[in-house]
Amino acid sequence: MEACGLVVEYNPFHNGHVYHIQEARKISQAECMIAVMSGSFLQRGEPAIMDKFYRARAALSKGIDLVVELPYPFAVQSSDLFAKGAVLTLSELGVSSLCFGSESGNIDNFINSYHRLKTNQQDYQNVLRDQLNSGISFPEASKAAYRHISLSTDEMDLTKPNNILGFSYVKTIMDHNLPIRPLTVQRSQSGYHDETISGSIASATSIRKTLTERNTITHEISNSIPDTTKMELENYNQRAGTWHVWENYFPFLHYRVTTMSLQELSMIQGVDEGLEHRLKKAARSVHSFGEWMQTLKTKRYTWTRLQRMFVHILTNTKKKEIDILCNPSKMAYVRVLGFNKTGQAYIHQQKKKIDVPLIQKLGRTMHPMLEMEERASDAYYSILAPDVKLALRNQEIQPPIKIL
Amino acid sequence: MEACGLVVEYNPFHNGHVYHIQEARKISQAECMIAVMSGSFLQRGEPAIMDKFYRARAALSKGIDLVVELPYPFAVQSSDLFAKGAVLTLSELGVSSLCFGSESGNIDNFINSYHRLKTNQQDYQNVLRDQLNSGISFPEASKAAYRHISLSTDEMDLTKPNNILGFSYVKTIMDHNLPIRPLTVQRSQSGYHDETISGSIASATSIRKTLTERNTITHEISNSIPDTTKMELENYNQRAGTWHVWENYFPFLHYRVTTMSLQELSMIQGVDEGLEHRLKKAARSVHSFGEWMQTLKTKRYTWTRLQRMFVHILTNTKKKEIDILCNPSKMAYVRVLGFNKTGQAYIHQQKKKIDVPLIQKLGRTMHPMLEMEERASDAYYSILAPDVKLALRNQEIQPPIKIL
Repeated sequence: MEACGLVVEYNPFHNGHVYHIQEARKISQAECMIAVMSGSFLQRGEPAIMDKFYRARAALSKGIDLVVELPYPFAVQSSDLFAKGAVLTLSELGVSSLCFGSESGNIDNFINSYHRLKTNQQDYQNVLRDQLNSGISFPEASKAAYRHISLSTDEMDLTKPNNILGFSYVKTIMDHNLPIRPLTVQRSQSGYHDETISGSIASATSIRKTLTERNTITHEISNSIPDTTKMELENYNQRAGTWHVWENYFPFLHYRVTTMSLQELSMIQGVDEGLEHRLKKAARSVHSFGEWMQTLKTKRYTWTRLQRMFVHILTNTKKKEIDILCNPSKMAYVRVLGFNKTGQAYIHQQKKKIDVPLIQKLGRTMHPMLEMEERASDAYYSILAPDVKLALRNQEIQPPIKIL
Repeated sequence: MEACGLVVEYNPFHNGHVYHIQEARKISQAECMIAVMSGSFLQRGEPAIMDKFYRARAALSKGIDLVVELPYPFAVQSSDLFAKGAVLTLSELGVSSLCFGSESGNIDNFINSYHRLKTNQQDYQNVLRDQLNSGISFPEASKAAYRHISLSTDEMDLTKPNNILGFSYVKTIMDHNLPIRPLTVQRSQSGYHDETISGSIASATSIRKTLTERNTITHEISNSIPDTTKMELENYNQRAGTWHVWENYFPFLHYRVTTMSLQELSMIQGVDEGLEHRLKKAARSVHSFGEWMQTLKTKRYTWTRLQRMFVHILTNTKKKEIDILCNPSKMAYVRVLGFNKTGQAYIHQQKKKIDVPLIQKLGRTMHPMLEMEERASDAYYSILAPDVKLALRNQEIQPPIKIL
């Protein structure tokens, strides 16, 4: 049995994801669809709207056969490390292909871009450095450097989030010479950042926006998500009493920043270039997370970069830890969040070939990356009432979800 | 003009405190009554029921002329360091006498006890060490060692909290050869720990208990506190929306403990002898602060010791910091919280003789002990809504309270 890997956040799992799985199944000809999914916190530096277990269940109900966790230190990162963690995890599981969504749906664009970048590496680096030195943000600098080597074109716009991620997957596969065939599916309708829902395919951003603004699953949302996602969302909200959004975390973040020394803050991942001073100063006058973000935001410190920094402050994640954990050229383990019969059979088939621990539940003595995952989980649930906080947190030490 | 010093917590300021001030004024013959008062957190390891500024105002309204702050690293400590910080602060201010409440009201008991301890120091130390090694708590071990050298007698019961503190003041004065006359006033009626209110003199413990259980200032409470205290209590509660009690801090403490590593926890003041393991393990199952305390309490880890540890966890106070800050033989500064005309005149008179900085408001560059005070203050207000949290916290950088 062959497997195809998808890199996902499913925040939440919607009809566009169902479509992507169906297309990936078609073009990969694989029997087992494996999702490597972010856990409590997401790539753009946000808490997931509901927890990873509920999100995994929604995915397993509608086409995914096996869900594994993208470890925290890779999940809350810019595209390079995010892609590295995801691709190396899928590689451990022995997938034959990896399929991602893109604007063009043409994999040759990505492969050609990779070769062009390799050939013009030095030029790219020079322009990137000059641009960064001029004080602009990394995404902007990278965009300019790509343009300079004619890498970002109309067919292959490397300023679009999905293209950036897709390119990073291809780059990781080819840099590591992995026996994984990269595949891409053209995204249907909604753009990544679209904020309004129209029709049966909506962006996760627009679904979350409507969900948190209206605080209910509207008719429009229902139209754009599978019934099973609707059920998981309802169950989670009923149990937890809330969705997870940044503003809920403001009291904890504010408490944390005001009771840390400048030196301690400067050791946190993402607190760079003296940001600790601005963070603490702003804390003296802000009344909300949004206000804090607005106060800190500049051309150089993008929204996403600041949000990621706040995630790392909340989870007490040090630069030193990230440096050690993200450096190795293979993953330390693969953590299974859930599977169905196909996923189970695939694990059984691959078991002997996987040469890192396959973690089915968290135990007492653990890899430092799993300890970090636990901390992220504790931080994630911290906003909930004591009883539900303990109960949901307890999912971490339970066996994986089985939909058999 | 001469001054008499009192060591206080005023949590809250009640009729027993008014009586103590009147008696101290009489026997000391001093014109200026100076209170050195704990700030946000108290000796027994609890948040003060209302903040230090409101408590200082209540004291200045009814007999105290000058309120200075007992710095955090000395305030949340066992009697020895608590007394050291308080007495050295009063010494910097040049007080002629120090007057404390005791059961017997006989100062000779304390002075004789001091000499007896000096003579039998070695015996005392030996018994203390043996008792501690047998696994009992420090207070119990100390009690046994005092009994062994016949120090704790009926007239001078060194197991009573007020006698322990009084003895520590006398010991500090005499150990440092300070030109301060120790005085004591017999406590009227209620014991330190009494939990029920009867008559016009009630213990602070009983007042707090009634206040937080009934969530209102009952007739019994009104009878046992000055009108001015009643007003400050009402104003504070109206503004903050709550009293400060441990349970309010549970979400923050739980978040903090679960997102710290074992190693980080073990660096916090009071987290000794592997308590970090028990702390984290218990955090997996407790629903409240009270439950956490019950789970951790043993013969060796007394309630007070555990509460102090929780204060230091909440305020992120390291062993290393306490070791450095509490070690010097004189205070680094004296911080003024408020005064009336007499207090102002006394400061003016003493100004040139005080050879450490007299802090009137917190500024930008500060002594590490004041930075710790700010952190304690941030932790203290963390439970409040954003607007009132910022407003109350802002009192730290305002000039002292003046009741002129």
